[in-house]
Amino acid sequence: MSPARRLNILVSNDDGIDAPGIAALVKELHRIGRVTVVAPHQQQSAVGHAITMNYPLRVREYRKNGRFFGYAVEGTPADCVKLAVRALLKKKPDIVVSGVNHGSNTAISVLYSGTVSAATEGTIFGIPSIAVSLTTYAQADFSVAAAFARKLVQQIARHGLPKGTLLNVNIPPLTKRRLKGVMVTRMGRAVWNDTFDARRDPANKEYYWLKGGLQRVDVGIEFDEAAVRAGYISVTPIQYDLTNYSMMETMQTWGIEGLHRDKK
Amino acid sequence: MSPARRLNILVSNDDGIDAPGIAALVKELHRIGRVTVVAPHQQQSAVGHAITMNYPLRVREYRKNGRFFGYAVEGTPADCVKLAVRALLKKKPDIVVSGVNHGSNTAISVLYSGTVSAATEGTIFGIPSIAVSLTTYAQADFSVAAAFARKLVQQIARHGLPKGTLLNVNIPPLTKRRLKGVMVTRMGRAVWNDTFDARRDPANKEYYWLKGGLQRVDVGIEFDEAAVRAGYISVTPIQYDLTNYSMMETMQTWGIEGLHRDKK
Repeated sequence: MSPARRLNILVSNDDGIDAPGIAALVKELHRIGRVTVVAPHQQQSAVGHAITMNYPLRVREYRKNGRFFGYAVEGTPADCVKLAVRALLKKKPDIVVSGVNHGSNTAISVLYSGTVSAATEGTIFGIPSIAVSLTTYAQADFSVAAAFARKLVQQIARHGLPKGTLLNVNIPPLTKRRLKGVMVTRMGRAVWNDTFDARRDPANKEYYWLKGGLQRVDVGIEFDEAAVRAGYISVTPIQYDLTNYSMMETMQTWGIEGLHRDKK
Repeated sequence: MSPARRLNILVSNDDGIDAPGIAALVKELHRIGRVTVVAPHQQQSAVGHAITMNYPLRVREYRKNGRFFGYAVEGTPADCVKLAVRALLKKKPDIVVSGVNHGSNTAISVLYSGTVSAATEGTIFGIPSIAVSLTTYAQADFSVAAAFARKLVQQIARHGLPKGTLLNVNIPPLTKRRLKGVMVTRMGRAVWNDTFDARRDPANKEYYWLKGGLQRVDVGIEFDEAAVRAGYISVTPIQYDLTNYSMMETMQTWGIEGLHRDKK
C-alpha cells in the first residue's frame, strides 16, 4: 500500500448506514481516497463477531440527499465486510475503517463490539483495518474523531500493520484543543456489572432485560478505558490469535495425553 | 473449587437446548455434579459473542421425556450464561461447560463460535469454563466427547484455570480406541475461503448466501485443526485479552502522541 497513490477504503460500522458517525467518517476519508461504504441497513450493536449463515443476505443501494452513499446490507458488520470483499468490490480494499461508533468500545466491550468485528474481518482478509469509536452516548460531534481516523489511516499507509493485528481506537468527545494527546494502550480489564430487570409483559409473562455498564477497575492510563477517561485518544493494537501460550506450557504438567483412556 | 465435593456445573451450547450434544454432555456431567442447563431455545451457530440488548429475553422451562431438563432462553449463548449467573442461579457455578457442539470450532472459527462465546462469558465472570466440540457435521455419537469433557472437568477441578483463560476442546468423531491421544494446541491460522452465492428470489430480486469452509494451511499438530485431522483431541487454552503487546512497543516509534493536532 503506497501512500503516494489514492487509497481504496472500505468503510463499515455497526450503528447502521444512516448513522451520523459513518457520514462524518466518509466525508473525511474522501479527502485521501476512494471510499466504498458497505454497512448494516440498521443498528447492529453488541452483535459481536456474528455472521449470517442460515439466512440469505440482501443488499440495496442506499442514497443520501439524492446521491448514492453506499450498500446497505441486511446483516451484521462482519457480514458486510465479508460480502464487500468477496462479492461487491472489484478489488480488495487497501484499508478497512469501521465506525465512527456512537459509544465506546473499550475493555471487555471489545468482545461484544460489532464495530471491532468489522475491522477484525478486514484483518482476517489480510487488509490493514481499524475500528473507531467516539466514547459518548450523548448527541455528539463526530468531526474530530473522523479527522483523527483519517490521519491514522495516513500513518498506516506509511507504516503498515503486522499480519493479524488491527487498531482499536477510542476517542473522547472533546474538542481538538481539549484532547490531551494520543496514548497507545492495552485492552482494559474491566468487565460489565450486568444485571437483568425481571419484568412482566401485558399478558403477565415474565421477561428479562439486560442493563449495566463497564466497571471502573483500571486506573493507569496504559489501559484503554482509563486513557479515554483522562482525556486521551486511545489506540490499542489487538489481535485475534487467542492462544494463551504460557498456559500451553503449564498444561504439559497436567499429563492429559492419555486422559481420554482413563477408566474413571 | 474442591474436587472432593460435588461440583455445581452450568451447561450451555449454541445448537439449542434440544440438541443431542447437550443431552450427552448433561448425562455425563450428572455423574460428577449438580447440573443446570441454560441454553438457547433454538440453534444459534455463528452468532459469535453477540448479546441481546435491544430486546427482552424470555425464558421457559424445557422438559424432555416428561422431566425438567433446563431453561430455554430466546437469546444467544452469551446471553444464556449472563442470564444464568446474574438472574436464574442462586449460586455462582463452579464451572461452565459449553457444548457438545455439532461441528468443529478450530482456527478462525473460534471467533465466530457461539459455543466458545458461552464459555468465554463464564470466564469473564471468573468461572473456569470450557467449550467442547465434536468435529463432524455428519450424524454422530456424542458419548466419547461427553465422557472426555467430564474427565477434563475433573482435571480442572484439581488444577484450576488461570484468570481470563478458558479451554477450547475439539474432539474428532472416533471411537476411544482409535483416538490417538490428547494434544495441547494453539489456535490455528486457517481462515475461511468464503464465497457468496448470488441468487434470485421468486420476485427476481438478488440475494447472497454465504458458503465456504476452513482452509487447510496448518500442517503441524501443534495447531488445533491439524491435531484433530490427525486423530487427536485438541485442547487449546485461549484468552480474551486481545492486546498485541509487541505492537504496542512498535507503535511508540510512530510518534502519534500529537497526531490529533497535525495540520494535515
